[in-house]
Amino acid sequence: MPNTLLYYTVRPRILIERRLPATTMPEQDSRTLPEFTRGDSRISELLGYLNQIADLQALGAIAEWDQNTAMPGGAADIRGFQLAALQGVLHELWTNPRLSNLLGALREPVQHASFSDADRGLVREALRAHDRATKLPRKLVEELARVQATSFEAWRSAKEHSDFARFAPMLSRTIVLYREVADRLGFVETRYDALLNEYESGMTSSKLDRLFAPVREVSKSLLQRINASGNTIDASCLAGEFPVEQQMALCERLLRNLGYDFSRGQMAQSPHPFTTSFGSPFDVRLTVRPMAAIHEGGHAVYEQGSASTLVRTPLAGGASSGAHESQSRLWENAIGRSRPYWQGQFSTVKEAFPTQFAHVDVTAFVRALNKVQPSLIRVEADEVTYNLHIIVRYELEKALINGDIAVETLPGLWNAKYRAYLGIEPSNDAEGVLQDIHWSFGFGYFPTYTLGNLYSAQIFHKLHAVFPDFDQRLASGDTAFALDWLREHMYAHGVIYQPEELIERVTNEPPNPEHFTHYLNAKFENIYSLPTTI
Amino acid sequence: MPNTLLYYTVRPRILIERRLPATTMPEQDSRTLPEFTRGDSRISELLGYLNQIADLQALGAIAEWDQNTAMPGGAADIRGFQLAALQGVLHELWTNPRLSNLLGALREPVQHASFSDADRGLVREALRAHDRATKLPRKLVEELARVQATSFEAWRSAKEHSDFARFAPMLSRTIVLYREVADRLGFVETRYDALLNEYESGMTSSKLDRLFAPVREVSKSLLQRINASGNTIDASCLAGEFPVEQQMALCERLLRNLGYDFSRGQMAQSPHPFTTSFGSPFDVRLTVRPMAAIHEGGHAVYEQGSASTLVRTPLAGGASSGAHESQSRLWENAIGRSRPYWQGQFSTVKEAFPTQFAHVDVTAFVRALNKVQPSLIRVEADEVTYNLHIIVRYELEKALINGDIAVETLPGLWNAKYRAYLGIEPSNDAEGVLQDIHWSFGFGYFPTYTLGNLYSAQIFHKLHAVFPDFDQRLASGDTAFALDWLREHMYAHGVIYQPEELIERVTNEPPNPEHFTHYLNAKFENIYSLPTTI
Repeated sequence: MPNTLLYYTVRPRILIERRLPATTMPEQDSRTLPEFTRGDSRISELLGYLNQIADLQALGAIAEWDQNTAMPGGAADIRGFQLAALQGVLHELWTNPRLSNLLGALREPVQHASFSDADRGLVREALRAHDRATKLPRKLVEELARVQATSFEAWRSAKEHSDFARFAPMLSRTIVLYREVADRLGFVETRYDALLNEYESGMTSSKLDRLFAPVREVSKSLLQRINASGNTIDASCLAGEFPVEQQMALCERLLRNLGYDFSRGQMAQSPHPFTTSFGSPFDVRLTVRPMAAIHEGGHAVYEQGSASTLVRTPLAGGASSGAHESQSRLWENAIGRSRPYWQGQFSTVKEAFPTQFAHVDVTAFVRALNKVQPSLIRVEADEVTYNLHIIVRYELEKALINGDIAVETLPGLWNAKYRAYLGIEPSNDAEGVLQDIHWSFGFGYFPTYTLGNLYSAQIFHKLHAVFPDFDQRLASGDTAFALDWLREHMYAHGVIYQPEELIERVTNEPPNPEHFTHYLNAKFENIYSLPTTI
Repeated sequence: MPNTLLYYTVRPRILIERRLPATTMPEQDSRTLPEFTRGDSRISELLGYLNQIADLQALGAIAEWDQNTAMPGGAADIRGFQLAALQGVLHELWTNPRLSNLLGALREPVQHASFSDADRGLVREALRAHDRATKLPRKLVEELARVQATSFEAWRSAKEHSDFARFAPMLSRTIVLYREVADRLGFVETRYDALLNEYESGMTSSKLDRLFAPVREVSKSLLQRINASGNTIDASCLAGEFPVEQQMALCERLLRNLGYDFSRGQMAQSPHPFTTSFGSPFDVRLTVRPMAAIHEGGHAVYEQGSASTLVRTPLAGGASSGAHESQSRLWENAIGRSRPYWQGQFSTVKEAFPTQFAHVDVTAFVRALNKVQPSLIRVEADEVTYNLHIIVRYELEKALINGDIAVETLPGLWNAKYRAYLGIEPSNDAEGVLQDIHWSFGFGYFPTYTLGNLYSAQIFHKLHAVFPDFDQRLASGDTAFALDWLREHMYAHGVIYQPEELIERVTNEPPNPEHFTHYLNAKFENIYSLPTTI
C-alpha cells in the first residue's frame, strides 16, 4: 500500500511487493572497485545531490521503456507532458546554485592525488551536465523539443511519400537550431564537434577523419574484391519460418549463456530493439529480436558490469555512445558472428528450431550469418559495408552543420556517395536520404557506430592477446572468461574515464583503426576465399 | 532519440515512438463536461502548477506499475531510492509558498457563483494535499516510511510462523506514529477519523457505525438462515484446469465487452490484481485474473470515464476509495455475478474453455459464482460474508487507534469476533489476525471496502429505476447503456464532489445502507430458496 500520506497514487492500492531473489553478480575483487572519497564532505555532498538527480532520471527512463514496450496509443500526448515535467525538474537541479558552488569548490582540488579517479570523473561529468544546462537557455531547449516533434512527423510523411521536399524545411530549421546549440556549447575546431561531444566526449571530427579514412578505403576495396571473386554464400537457411515465441525463448537462452543477469534486468519486445537502464548495475532492461539480442546483450552486460560503488551517480553505465557500441558490436559481430562462438552455441539454436535447422551444420550457419551483400539500407548491412553507410552519413551531417552544403543538395549528394562507396544507388528518397529517423532529432550520433566497430576490433585483438586459447574457449561454450575480463578492465569503471582514455587503458594503445581493417580483411578473405593481404 | 541535451537517458537511443491509433472514447455531450474557469488568472495559474504535480505523480505510478508487473528482484533497493526522490520533489511542490499564496487568494472567492464546481473541487483537493504536506513534518513522514518497511518484514515473518508476537512490537510502533499523524492532521470526534479521511474524505466513524450496523445484522442473519436451510450449491464446475493463457484471453474479451478501452490502457499479470492510472482518462492500466478482471475493470472504466477536461489535475480519477470500490463491486458483484449478465456473456466463457464448460449451463455457472461459504480468509469471501470480514477489521482498527484496546489483546478479540459474526474461528494467527498486509502500513482503509458495497447497491438500485429493462439489456449482452449512464452521471465528474455528495447526486439520496441489505436478502433468498423477508 503506497503511503497515500505522500499523495502518491491515484487511489490507495494494496500491493504486495514482488520480490524475486536478488542474486549477487560476481563483482571484481573489492580492492579494484572504484571508490569515491566519501570522507571529503564536498564529495559526499556532491554525491548526495547527484544521487537525487540519477534517481529522478531513472524514473524518466522507466517511463520511456514503458512508452516503447507497452504504452497505449491514447497516452502519447500525456506521456509527453510527464516527461517534460521531469525535464523541468532536472533542469532546475542541474542549474541550481548549490551545485555550482559545490563544483566550484571541487574543480581544482579534485585534481590532487588525494582524490580518486572516480572523484575526478564525477566532477567532470557533473560539470559537463551543469555547463550544458546553464549554457542552453530554457527557451532554446523547449523550441528544439517542439521542432523535433514536428520534424519527426515531417520525416515520417516524407518517407511514406518518398518525397524529400516534405522534410527539407524542418531539416533546415533543425540545423539552424543545432548550430545555435553548438555555438552556445562552444567548440575549438568546428561546430560539428560541439554536437559530436554530446555523444562522444573528447572526440573531434579531425580525429574521426583520421580514424575513418582507412576504414572507408579497406571496406570499399574488400567489397570490390568480394564482388570480383564471384564467390557467393547461400543464406537460405535463415529465411525459414521462425515463430516469435520460440525466437524469444532462444533470445533468453542466448542472453543467459552470454552472462546477462536476469535478476537485474528484463527482456521484452519492441518494434526496434534497444537497451536502457533504470540504475546500473541493478536494473538494466533490453528489448530483442534474435541476433539483435546479442547486440543488445552487449549493451546490457556493459551496463550491468558497472561497479556497484558507482550506482546512482552519473558515472554508472557506459563511457560514451562509441564505448557502448563497441560492446554491442564486440558481442554481436566479433564474437557473435564467429565460428568458435557458434561451435559453442549452435546446439541451443538447434534445440529452439529443430525442424528449421535439421539439415544445417554450424559451418553453413556461420557462413549465412556473414553473407556480404551491399544494400541500400543501413540496418540490414553486413560487417563489410556497414561502416560505409555510416561514413556517408557522417560526411554529410558534418558538412550540413558546418555550413558546407545546402539542404536541397542532400539527396543528390547521398546518392552519389552510395554509388562511390557501395556501388549501388537508391532509386528514391525513401530508400535513400530519408531512411533513418536520426536527422529529425539531431546530429553527431552516426559516427559513434563506426567508432564502436573500431573499438570493438581493438578490444577483440586484446582479448586474443590475453587469452591465447580464446577461440577454443568460445568453441567449448564458455564466454564467461571474456565477460569477467571485460568487467574488470572496462565495465566496472563506468564513466570514470573519457572514452579514448578508457580504450587506451583497456588495450594499452590509443584508438587505432588498423585493428579493425585487419580484422575485416582477415575474416572476409577467409570466408570468401580471397588472396590474403596480411 | 531522446534529447540527450536534456541529460535524460543513460545512453542515447534511437527509438521510433510506438504510436497505436488513439481512439476517441465517446465523451458526454460537451455541454455537460465539467470546466475550469480558465479565464481567471488565479485558476489558470493554479492549474499550471497542479498539472506539473500530476505529471510527476504519474511517473511514480508508472514506476510502481513496473515494480509490480516486471521489475527484477535485484532492483528493489534502487527503486526505493527512485520513488523516495520523487516524493521529495512532490513534497517541495506541495509545500511551496507560491502554492500557499495561490490557494490563499482563491479559498474565499472560489465559493462565489461565478466559479464552477470544478474550480471549487480543485481548490479543495489542492488545499487537502497542501495541508497534509505542511502539517506532517518531513521527519515524521520519513520515519513512517522506514517503520512501514520494517513492519512489512515483521508481518511477513510473523505470518510465515503464525506468530503474532513477532509482529506486535512493530504494530505498536506503527500505531504510535499514526496517532501522531492523526493529531497533526486534526479531527473533530476521534483520532481514527483523521486517518479514515485520507481514504474517504468527509467520512467519520460515527457515520460508519450507523451505516455498518444494519449490514452486520443482516449479513449475520442471512448467513444463519442459509446454514439452517441445509441448501447447498455445487461449485465444482469452477474447480477444473484453466490454463493461464486462455484465462488472460478471456479476461481481455470480458474487459472489451465491459467497455474498457484498450487504446487508453493495458492489461498485465501480477501476483495481486490492481488498477492504476498514469493520467486519467488517457492511460489506465490493470492487472487481472478472471473475476478479478471484472472487479479491476470496474476500477478502470471509472478512471477512464473522467472527463478529459480534468486531465492532469487532482480532479481526474475516482472521488475516494469508497467511490472507487463501489464501481469495482458494482461490476464484479451486482452486475458481474448476476444471471442476466451471464446470459449475455456466458458464450464468451464457453468459447474460451469449450471442454471445461461443455456440460455446464448458465444457471449452474451463476449459482457456482454465488456459493456462500463462511471462510476465515477475507479475499476468498462471498458477498454475504465479505462485509463481516471488513467489519471485524474496522471495529478493531478503530479501537486500536483510539486507544480503546491493547495490541496484545488483538488475536483474542479477532477470534472472538469471527466466532460471533461468522460462526467460525481461526486455529492460528496466520489464518486469523495476520492474514492481511494492511496493518503493516496503516489504518483507515478497510471500511472503504464495505462502503463501496453499500454505494454499489444504491447505484445498482438507481440503474434499475432509470432502466426498467435493465435485466433484459444485460441478458442481450449489452452493458454499454449502463456504462454510458455511469460515465455521464458519475465518472465524468472525477473528484469534483466529496464522496457522499457524489453518491447523493448520482442516486438522489444520501448514503443509505438499506439498498445493500435489500439487495443481499433478495438475491440470496432467491438463490438459496429461503422464505422472503421483503
